Amino acid sequence: MDCIFCEIASKTSEAEIVFENEKFIAFLDINPVNYGHTLVIPKTHFDNFLTMPAKELEEMTKLTQYLSGVIKRALKADGFNVISNNGTSAGQSVFHFHYHIIPRYENDFHMRPRTIEYNSTEIEVYAEKIKAAVSKYEGLLNG
Amino acid sequence: MDCIFCEIASKTSEAEIVFENEKFIAFLDINPVNYGHTLVIPKTHFDNFLTMPAKELEEMTKLTQYLSGVIKRALKADGFNVISNNGTSAGQSVFHFHYHIIPRYENDFHMRPRTIEYNSTEIEVYAEKIKAAVSKYEGLLNG
Repeated sequence: MDCIFCEIASKTSEAEIVFENEKFIAFLDINPVNYGHTLVIPKTHFDNFLTMPAKELEEMTKLTQYLSGVIKRALKADGFNVISNNGTSAGQSVFHFHYHIIPRYENDFHMRPRTIEYNSTEIEVYAEKIKAAVSKYEGLLNG
Repeated sequence: MDCIFCEIASKTSEAEIVFENEKFIAFLDINPVNYGHTLVIPKTHFDNFLTMPAKELEEMTKLTQYLSGVIKRALKADGFNVISNNGTSAGQSVFHFHYHIIPRYENDFHMRPRTIEYNSTEIEVYAEKIKAAVSKYEGLLNG
């Protein structure tokens, strides 16, 4: 086994676990963006957000909602980010699906470091590309 | 009505809409972090991630999974972030729940700009605080 999150799920690697049930486990990120930065993972290995089965994704998101509220209260945070990074280019470093829950405080860092601007009608070009793909793949949504 | 996302949902404000069904709508962020940066919202107003009813949260997350895959293909992205910012301190600027889908490319920006380090046993202190709150509020998860 060479997935660190599978090892944490099977207790062959240690972590500061804050929640566990039959299917999911939550623990503190050891390379945190902020204090109390928590990761929520399925015990079963799925590479990323796209490959999560619908039922597991729904259950894990509901659990993450619960844990976000709990962490916000526990750490008296003013807010929090819920983040899923998918692909190396998006900052994913462990290829076992996980949600980050990052507690935030007033005057804390804001997650909007780079913005781009669309030139004139460029925004429509991007919208058209996405709409074409929505039409092309709409079978995937209801299928 | 003074919620811009409610206005977009009711078509009283314009947006580059890329997907719409009975309950949800997706459109391009006009202040994008990257090209094709898309927002997914429920048509019904809920302030944030914590106040989303379970069923709506599950459906919207499944839709966001679908749209992430579609946008990745449409824009030939290498990866993407799915983000929910909750509270001003977390970067939330419109208080109507939304997921950000941000396409990412190799050598693109990484969303991990600030990291902290726990001193010695500090990580355990944070884990204990969260575990205590998990116990205190566990009724909320199954209730």
